[in-house]
Amino acid sequence: MKIFRVNMSNQQVTSEDTPEKLQTLGGRALTSAVIAEEVEPTCHPLGHLNKIVIAPGLLSGTSAPSSGRLSVGFKSPLTGGIKESNAGGTAAQKLAKLGIKAIIIEGLPKEETFYTLKVSTDGVEILPGDELSGKRNYETIQTLQAKHGEDVGVMCIGPAGEYRLTAASVAVADPEGRPVRHAGRGGGGAVFGSKGIKAIVIDDINAPGVEIKNKEKFKEAARDFSKMLTEHPVSGQGLPMYGTAVLINILNEAGGLPTKNFRHGRFDFAEKISGEMMHDTIKERKGEPTHGCHRGCVIRCSQVYHDKEGKYLTAGFEYETIWAFGANCTIDDLDAIAKMDYLCDDIGVDTIEMGVTVGVAMEAGVVEFGDADGAINLLEQIGEGTQMGRIIGNGAGFTGKAFGVTRVPVVKNQSIPAYDPRAVKGIGVTYATTPMGADHTAGYSVTANILKVGGHIDPLKKEGQVDLSRTLQIATAAIDSTGLCLFVAFSVLDEPKALDRIVDMLNAQYGFNLTTDDVTALGKEVLKNERNFNVTAGLNEAHDRLPEFFKEELTPHGAVFDIPNEELDQVFDF
Amino acid sequence: MKIFRVNMSNQQVTSEDTPEKLQTLGGRALTSAVIAEEVEPTCHPLGHLNKIVIAPGLLSGTSAPSSGRLSVGFKSPLTGGIKESNAGGTAAQKLAKLGIKAIIIEGLPKEETFYTLKVSTDGVEILPGDELSGKRNYETIQTLQAKHGEDVGVMCIGPAGEYRLTAASVAVADPEGRPVRHAGRGGGGAVFGSKGIKAIVIDDINAPGVEIKNKEKFKEAARDFSKMLTEHPVSGQGLPMYGTAVLINILNEAGGLPTKNFRHGRFDFAEKISGEMMHDTIKERKGEPTHGCHRGCVIRCSQVYHDKEGKYLTAGFEYETIWAFGANCTIDDLDAIAKMDYLCDDIGVDTIEMGVTVGVAMEAGVVEFGDADGAINLLEQIGEGTQMGRIIGNGAGFTGKAFGVTRVPVVKNQSIPAYDPRAVKGIGVTYATTPMGADHTAGYSVTANILKVGGHIDPLKKEGQVDLSRTLQIATAAIDSTGLCLFVAFSVLDEPKALDRIVDMLNAQYGFNLTTDDVTALGKEVLKNERNFNVTAGLNEAHDRLPEFFKEELTPHGAVFDIPNEELDQVFDF
Repeated sequence: MKIFRVNMSNQQVTSEDTPEKLQTLGGRALTSAVIAEEVEPTCHPLGHLNKIVIAPGLLSGTSAPSSGRLSVGFKSPLTGGIKESNAGGTAAQKLAKLGIKAIIIEGLPKEETFYTLKVSTDGVEILPGDELSGKRNYETIQTLQAKHGEDVGVMCIGPAGEYRLTAASVAVADPEGRPVRHAGRGGGGAVFGSKGIKAIVIDDINAPGVEIKNKEKFKEAARDFSKMLTEHPVSGQGLPMYGTAVLINILNEAGGLPTKNFRHGRFDFAEKISGEMMHDTIKERKGEPTHGCHRGCVIRCSQVYHDKEGKYLTAGFEYETIWAFGANCTIDDLDAIAKMDYLCDDIGVDTIEMGVTVGVAMEAGVVEFGDADGAINLLEQIGEGTQMGRIIGNGAGFTGKAFGVTRVPVVKNQSIPAYDPRAVKGIGVTYATTPMGADHTAGYSVTANILKVGGHIDPLKKEGQVDLSRTLQIATAAIDSTGLCLFVAFSVLDEPKALDRIVDMLNAQYGFNLTTDDVTALGKEVLKNERNFNVTAGLNEAHDRLPEFFKEELTPHGAVFDIPNEELDQVFDF
Repeated sequence: MKIFRVNMSNQQVTSEDTPEKLQTLGGRALTSAVIAEEVEPTCHPLGHLNKIVIAPGLLSGTSAPSSGRLSVGFKSPLTGGIKESNAGGTAAQKLAKLGIKAIIIEGLPKEETFYTLKVSTDGVEILPGDELSGKRNYETIQTLQAKHGEDVGVMCIGPAGEYRLTAASVAVADPEGRPVRHAGRGGGGAVFGSKGIKAIVIDDINAPGVEIKNKEKFKEAARDFSKMLTEHPVSGQGLPMYGTAVLINILNEAGGLPTKNFRHGRFDFAEKISGEMMHDTIKERKGEPTHGCHRGCVIRCSQVYHDKEGKYLTAGFEYETIWAFGANCTIDDLDAIAKMDYLCDDIGVDTIEMGVTVGVAMEAGVVEFGDADGAINLLEQIGEGTQMGRIIGNGAGFTGKAFGVTRVPVVKNQSIPAYDPRAVKGIGVTYATTPMGADHTAGYSVTANILKVGGHIDPLKKEGQVDLSRTLQIATAAIDSTGLCLFVAFSVLDEPKALDRIVDMLNAQYGFNLTTDDVTALGKEVLKNERNFNVTAGLNEAHDRLPEFFKEELTPHGAVFDIPNEELDQVFDF
């Protein structure tokens, strides 16, 4: 497979065969290895020394179920550390089918203008993209698909990325050409913007497809693995039925649904924004209650949400988004939250960062808690590039500083997601210590803490949380390298043979001789690369801490975050 | 001497005799020791765990010449590290005469309201201060002096501090009650604002004065020392005659006057903003070309600057301010720059941080380079609390992020002052490594690099700069602890007996048996305290670096900053 390098300074594209040491890597393992090797850790994230690495996972483009995840790696302008931002959509599969291991974007254009990259069997071309400048994501994808064909994959940035705001995302089109999948976290959109990349069009017509060394073995393992996914109660029932929003009622019940900028663990109106309510609303309005973000997904946790008139409002409406603008901002109107989701997708900002930011703005009194119109107005201002928009679009930490607020739920300047670390302590360990900045997906201890998947560890007790988070962070780093959706983890944690089947697929595809131990070793190596980068970039143990207000008691359990610092510092002892 | 603790959480004031281990400390040595000992390094700088320590120097309040400097210590909301911000004005002498070693302000008030602290022979009282809320510094001091007496000393914050903006300063009244002396750097005003401290009134009527153990010896040493200061060409002639702005022509000539946001080393219109021009203008308009910021100063580098109509425009008009709004923003109108100086003093923001921030805003195209009215408008917006004001008032690093600018001259998020580190490499080492964030006063290598004071080290060569900066940083930490103005350093560097006289004064005052070696040891201990705090707070070696654009060549010498990182990391090897 090929690695393409796009140098924006001299507008040259080169390609090379994947060097041997990168051949066994994909997805996050690959992006983090390249960033750690090639990017000066102390460089300015929007300067000429930063790079963007786009890589499908090892299994992407094959018939492995739910394997269409894409990794986008860079030094984050939000956290100041290394970032792998992971997205669904159609891009990963198309890149893999084109035989592309990774695209590495380097340098900075000499003039302030925008470009489109066209990826096809002819390689990678740099095309003018200035006619797209200022366009939002829905229109950008429509324009590009009208020009390059309905079926092309698209990655693009909205106005937020053009303004180089640190909450800017990279949108990835779903199969219907909607910008509802995002490499959302860490400000990748701003890095795209700094390099003048408005969009990447991926045309896989006549693509050779992914070579499978042993097709029979692959098929067998994929079939088995698919069965495990569809038979697991979470990935086979809860997620397809209610989407990720199934978690609203579960976390509320557990007292871990952060409410009013992390003041309470329960939201009085949780039912009104729950997955169950969303499901019923979608059905009533003839939307799609279940939908896959890429072809071949057997979990299909996405959905299409219509407004009262039965017209499209948004898609890919996630638990974290609904929580962020809902319970966190004490907004109980699901239609208004859907509108905010749409706006974030269209302007190109991370919904988690934005919901937490709006909560901080509410804390500052910029708008009142519960004021949905006020929240929508703040998001609109990002797209309009107003001064307020430039504050909000730079995220919660930035907005807290702008308004002198101290109750700012961030770690490494990235917003803390939808699980209160006092009531779900394992996830608190992950927030504090992952090299990614506060990120639930980096070690999703909600499994054992709340869902009783992969055992049960009392979420309110200190004991076992560090070990849990460590194990999950290692496993996640490995899964993120395969291109498999993180939601395969439910099966992997509960069914010992699931990991064997992943290894079987990898071995059958590439002719590897991997064992499950190799997978663990890969996860460890990814984390070590990332952590070393961060320390050299200036993120030491002091940055592996939660904000001090998590020592305040959280209702209803009166829980505080009490994992000692010395234990947090043991997460990377492996 | 007493240490007063003001707890804003419970509104209690307590006092204690100075504990033995703090008795030999004053000024920066004392503030940094208390912050390092009592403040959790990872705490939120605007939260309840941060503290403010206000301490006169060891010699403050005596007849030692130019000994009226005040240290204000805190964890900086601008840099995230420890901060000692040093100011002239009358406060230090009055505190010392009241027998006050330090005032430590702790906690946070429960309600969002402002208070005034009244310091007198009765101790420290917390008074309501809400009637001052929103007032700018000139009016605040006038109001307080009208109420508490014309001669009271005042420290206060303007709107910027009330808004908790990280460029907010703490103003210290000069002998005429003007807010022209500031503990300017690092956002102390924001910490005052967070703790609800609008102002501190210091009434030294009936104060016992400073006890001198051996008056005769003290007098003799002070007289000798005073003579050395007035006989040195810099502190005896250049500074009294032209103020610190004497440096404009000198740095321009040296090719080290940062121009147009650090693009060039010379400003075509330097002459128009020079100290010589200022001197002539002041004389013509019947201002005061030389003025002391506190009684007993023999250097008198301050001045009172009138407008064309002969009315007061500003005072304490420093080189760094004139450079920051002048050459750095390519503004060549000294009256307009004087207006900006006045606005910064009145609104309560650091002039260096603001000039660099306006330069960054010009880089972003928010206003054009050279546009004085546009710059004035940006400063006015800080006072008005607009969204733009909240961006600008948070400094250059913040403004760079808001507008996606990469050419942002900061170290540890604090603006780089008036000496280009490529053309004055010793000061570059200081900027990079001092625990204070970019700060020329922390190790003023301009002495040996440019002024040929204390020897000569070629400013354009790498050799010797690390040793120079280290020696000066150690000496400065000690001088900042005595309450002596840093400008005594010219004599100390050129005249071996000057340091002896300082030691003689300290021994005569306190009955100490210090040697000059003890002074060096004190400087080292201060730096170690500060550096340890910073590392624990999250500032490791990665933060001891200049921005990457200092690798670009600077006209006219084509110089780049080329001190290797490994050498920068040796500054603290002592």
